[in-house]
Amino acid sequence: MQEASRQEILFECLEDGDFGRVRSMLESFHPSEIADLLESLPGRHRRALWELVDPDVEGEVLTEVQDAVRAGLLAEMQPQEVAEMTRGLDPDEAADILQDLPEERVDSVLLSMDAQNRERIASLLSYPEDTAGGLMDTDVVWVRADVTLDVVTRYLRQLGELPDHTDSLIVVDRQNRYLGVLSLAEVLVNKSEDSVGEHMSEGVGIPADTPEEDVARLFEQRDLISAAVLDEHRKLLGRITIDDVVDVIQDLAEQSVRNMAGLGEDDLFASVLSSARRRAVWLGISLLSVFLAAWVIGRFEATIEELVALAILMPIVAGLGGSAGSQALTISVRGLALGRISRQNARSLVLKECAVGLLNGVLWAAVVGVVATLWFGNEGLGLIISLAMVINLVCAALAGSMIPLALKKFGVDPAIAGGVILTTVTDVIGFMTFLGLATIFLLP
Amino acid sequence: MQEASRQEILFECLEDGDFGRVRSMLESFHPSEIADLLESLPGRHRRALWELVDPDVEGEVLTEVQDAVRAGLLAEMQPQEVAEMTRGLDPDEAADILQDLPEERVDSVLLSMDAQNRERIASLLSYPEDTAGGLMDTDVVWVRADVTLDVVTRYLRQLGELPDHTDSLIVVDRQNRYLGVLSLAEVLVNKSEDSVGEHMSEGVGIPADTPEEDVARLFEQRDLISAAVLDEHRKLLGRITIDDVVDVIQDLAEQSVRNMAGLGEDDLFASVLSSARRRAVWLGISLLSVFLAAWVIGRFEATIEELVALAILMPIVAGLGGSAGSQALTISVRGLALGRISRQNARSLVLKECAVGLLNGVLWAAVVGVVATLWFGNEGLGLIISLAMVINLVCAALAGSMIPLALKKFGVDPAIAGGVILTTVTDVIGFMTFLGLATIFLLP
Repeated sequence: MQEASRQEILFECLEDGDFGRVRSMLESFHPSEIADLLESLPGRHRRALWELVDPDVEGEVLTEVQDAVRAGLLAEMQPQEVAEMTRGLDPDEAADILQDLPEERVDSVLLSMDAQNRERIASLLSYPEDTAGGLMDTDVVWVRADVTLDVVTRYLRQLGELPDHTDSLIVVDRQNRYLGVLSLAEVLVNKSEDSVGEHMSEGVGIPADTPEEDVARLFEQRDLISAAVLDEHRKLLGRITIDDVVDVIQDLAEQSVRNMAGLGEDDLFASVLSSARRRAVWLGISLLSVFLAAWVIGRFEATIEELVALAILMPIVAGLGGSAGSQALTISVRGLALGRISRQNARSLVLKECAVGLLNGVLWAAVVGVVATLWFGNEGLGLIISLAMVINLVCAALAGSMIPLALKKFGVDPAIAGGVILTTVTDVIGFMTFLGLATIFLLP
Repeated sequence: MQEASRQEILFECLEDGDFGRVRSMLESFHPSEIADLLESLPGRHRRALWELVDPDVEGEVLTEVQDAVRAGLLAEMQPQEVAEMTRGLDPDEAADILQDLPEERVDSVLLSMDAQNRERIASLLSYPEDTAGGLMDTDVVWVRADVTLDVVTRYLRQLGELPDHTDSLIVVDRQNRYLGVLSLAEVLVNKSEDSVGEHMSEGVGIPADTPEEDVARLFEQRDLISAAVLDEHRKLLGRITIDDVVDVIQDLAEQSVRNMAGLGEDDLFASVLSSARRRAVWLGISLLSVFLAAWVIGRFEATIEELVALAILMPIVAGLGGSAGSQALTISVRGLALGRISRQNARSLVLKECAVGLLNGVLWAAVVGVVATLWFGNEGLGLIISLAMVINLVCAALAGSMIPLALKKFGVDPAIAGGVILTTVTDVIGFMTFLGLATIFLLP
């Protein structure tokens, strides 16, 4: 509650143009909270607020902001300013920000940095953003297996400060090859004359080209706090920490929700034009789908002219098929995203969904059949719509569960096109069976 | 790739009934991987595999499995077995498992435990599962602010082992009230005669009744690894670690996807009957929605009899409205879930969505108008359908963005009922404007 009112007061000051007050209020906000504020603001106010953010925390704020919002804020900054801003950041965070700049601007920003930073960040930029290499931080404390804990303690004391989220040290051999990890807890609780090798554990070493989804799954499964990132010769390159992975997990979940609605990377307050443009494509595809459905209905023009009740009832068959199909679709899309569906169990899943579709089809077809019979005083019509519904609900379950599997096979994200293809199937089959059966059995 | 084939071999052995081989293969799987295997298996095979899991890791496997699957596995175990199984677990994990048992069975399991475990777990069970108290672990290492780091080091060495994921110690005063945290890194790098107070930092203390969403948001915003959980007098109760929070983040994201499809807590291989029952309710609600749409069409029976082209084209108006509306709906539902929408910016969001709806409405209405005119050789029809589409897409944007805000106000999860209400609105308005305008302007 307190949080909300603090934010409300700030928004009101911003609206009133009381910028001095906003600036002083911002000091009490954590950079991640400022990032949330920016994401919650429409364009004009967003730029105004960004101008008021203390330059010392600008970099941190920018790392916390969604990609789409970040690109907008970066677009108006000078290379020199960007370079300045990234100075206090971890190299992996700085690299993330630079990855959102156009290629030609990245170079000018790098040139504005001092040599050491430039080198570290440029090396990170060589890994794609969505791999272990792109997530890692090069700021790692490593030790050899044959030294004693006493030596380690003296070494750490000499360093004076450890990178954020250091819960363990990485153990390597003389060729810098990964051996395992030594938790700080082990250093503290064991005898100082013991060797590192005695207390290190295997840990997890992740190849630099591992996709970020796999990194996230590994962290989740193994309850990791940090893991070493290795090159193809198992040499130590850097370290991934859980805070970066939490962002990946959140992003991936977000992404699948957005993809299912055909939104792409959309920001709450993107400009009207850019949102409209992004969504127009999706609507165009939906339009093809409904045109196909309309064309199917058109084939039965004569039948409908004879019996207008068909036009009235046909959305029921198509609509309920769509709802049932989207349940099967969601189960299948999520199962794939979580890596739960394999060649072995795909068939069981599809069969199970069909059985569910059949049961619910029979149940609701009976209800609709009775209502249709009473409504139009036509038993034949009631029977026909029941039959069409059962067929459509089973087809919907079949399509809903299989479409994502097929899309995945063709390398398409199942969440993106699944919904439209499904609606096309349930509309076309729904209209075709209902109107087709009516043409055969009801017309004189 | 290796992962998949190992899993495939195991599934094949299970299918062939080669249980000895399965049992020995299972030894090479991490408990979380076994949990994934269980979730990927249809009922019969799931029970067979569960029988083969080593009793020593059963508890750990169970903590990693989805709630719905866990309840199924627990249903067939004796209280004594459950008590046995939870012995090696952290108290918070054991409490999580017990929370999935029916009330009367919890007591018999607790009675089968030794006194110390019973007491610790019973105290955790007093907090709701979805609050900070339900997430916390009571196994915490705390120190006083006025002792030296040397004393701390000797104390830790005496403990011999620290709880998993201990990256920092919690600092409390003599009344056990929370003061801050001292990272293990600080203990290691600083002079041993320094006091704890000199090097501790403020940290984050979370009240036990904080909802888990807020806990997750806090961890995400502040990049926390662990945080102290406090009672109403700021006394230390326990500690939440990031690995528990990662599960919450994943669950919450899952939940909103499932809720949008009306699935509830559904497991990939729940029994056909229980899946069908859970989804039937949702389909019943959808059915009410399509019946309402059919009733609206029924009002225009005479118009359709006059001009069958209307029946052919009407799904286009309703369908595209539905697609556009669901984009606005998704933006609004996600914005609310992430806490990005407040009283201040809700109006801007709705206005922006309406503008997007208007732009895309005009664009695709023009296309549909031209196609309809050419198809039926009727310019009036082309004009009417264009007009109906623009109206419906703006209404869809308005409804899509406002329905979640309204549902939230009434305390309903916006993801649950949003989709059905939206479809009802876009169907009813789509059919009504299209058929209504046609009745007024096209009929003789």
